[in-house]
Amino acid sequence: MRNIRLIVEYDGTGLSGWQRQDNAPTVQGYLEVALAPLVGHPTPVAGASRTDAGVHAMGQVARFRTDKPIPLHGIRRGCNGLLPRGIAVTAAEEAAEDFHPRFSATGKHYRYVLTARPDRSPRWSNWSWHRPRPLDVDAMRRAATAMVGAHDFAGFRAIDCTSKTTMRRVDEVAVTEPEPGLLAIDVRGNAFLRNMVRIMAGTLVDVGEGRIDPAQMPEIIASRDRVRAGQTAPPHGLTLMSVRYDGARVR
Amino acid sequence: MRNIRLIVEYDGTGLSGWQRQDNAPTVQGYLEVALAPLVGHPTPVAGASRTDAGVHAMGQVARFRTDKPIPLHGIRRGCNGLLPRGIAVTAAEEAAEDFHPRFSATGKHYRYVLTARPDRSPRWSNWSWHRPRPLDVDAMRRAATAMVGAHDFAGFRAIDCTSKTTMRRVDEVAVTEPEPGLLAIDVRGNAFLRNMVRIMAGTLVDVGEGRIDPAQMPEIIASRDRVRAGQTAPPHGLTLMSVRYDGARVR
Repeated sequence: MRNIRLIVEYDGTGLSGWQRQDNAPTVQGYLEVALAPLVGHPTPVAGASRTDAGVHAMGQVARFRTDKPIPLHGIRRGCNGLLPRGIAVTAAEEAAEDFHPRFSATGKHYRYVLTARPDRSPRWSNWSWHRPRPLDVDAMRRAATAMVGAHDFAGFRAIDCTSKTTMRRVDEVAVTEPEPGLLAIDVRGNAFLRNMVRIMAGTLVDVGEGRIDPAQMPEIIASRDRVRAGQTAPPHGLTLMSVRYDGARVR
Repeated sequence: MRNIRLIVEYDGTGLSGWQRQDNAPTVQGYLEVALAPLVGHPTPVAGASRTDAGVHAMGQVARFRTDKPIPLHGIRRGCNGLLPRGIAVTAAEEAAEDFHPRFSATGKHYRYVLTARPDRSPRWSNWSWHRPRPLDVDAMRRAATAMVGAHDFAGFRAIDCTSKTTMRRVDEVAVTEPEPGLLAIDVRGNAFLRNMVRIMAGTLVDVGEGRIDPAQMPEIIASRDRVRAGQTAPPHGLTLMSVRYDGARVR
């Protein structure tokens, strides 16, 4: 049985997220609908990250199985002919028999973008969260440093998160200014709890706007209390940039 | 009489360009409709560049006149409350009495973006031209060099262009790869003919795809013949980045 890995880019605007739902436009649903006529059988698709409604991806990783000898470029082009304009398959590769996009992943990179200026940005409106008040970037960086490392992130997950363990390793939280008026928060780690990156980003915004003291961050994390962490940043600022497997980034 | 300069950012998708038209959504039209109730009188707005339908701007410059003592931040915020989401005023400043956004301009910077990879990019679809075949970037750079300087660009303008003189000075045509799979063509010059930047970009794509020999560029320019230059690149890849006045960039 062939095990085929896809790299998928999407604009989450107007999509109901990754996970298949009845009567809602989802990335998994569109991929399964596009693949079935190409391979001639139903094709359950697994993904690396179950991104929320409105969240974007540059390097989501998916896989499906088939026995049909359809060439890889035919899969890629065929999908792109059948997918809506906001979703594209940018690579199709043969993967090892035991490859699974989620369970084989060793790391993920998410980027959260803020439009940090008084006025909204038409260029970035669908891909960033507009924060009109000045942000204390130095304070955000101090708080970001406290998030790095292996911690129990029980305070940084959605109430409906069902993960049994809440220990996660965060390798990097970098706050940069990729262009004037934009702030990017790049978060890299081995795995993330439900809404964890959005709560980290929202907490950093609360720090930047003076509602949380960055010196309190170690204590806030140690409290394991969702109420002590900051707000959940909205989905449209978040992009899944890439997923790592055994140290090799896949995008 | 106050002469007020605005910096305007817009997503040209779905807009019918800068210039006011009856029954079509234009940037000039929206600005005039937003300003009139703010200042309490009709407000003709002039712009630096009459961008085509679909063309974007990060730093369009506009101006209007009023005698009302409304503060600058009230103008900026008031406009943004009344403008559609795809248009934003990012600055409002008092300008000299004789300032005119077009006639006072000493230079403009346009960027043309190509998605240069086999598959479309949902991230860039509205802000770039998708060219799926490999581009010879070195050949494009050689052709770009030939475009720099003071030339008669009569072969690089739309048929309906009404400019009396066709001499223009191009200061820079830089072809760079800002991220993997994207090519940016940054064009800076004193002024441009109608469709000139789009024809320059289309010509560079024709060079990159092997339809025009870069060594022919000096001769193609000297011919002043629209038929010898390349295709007109579509509007949605083009963005007006900034406008210069007396050496000071305004954005």
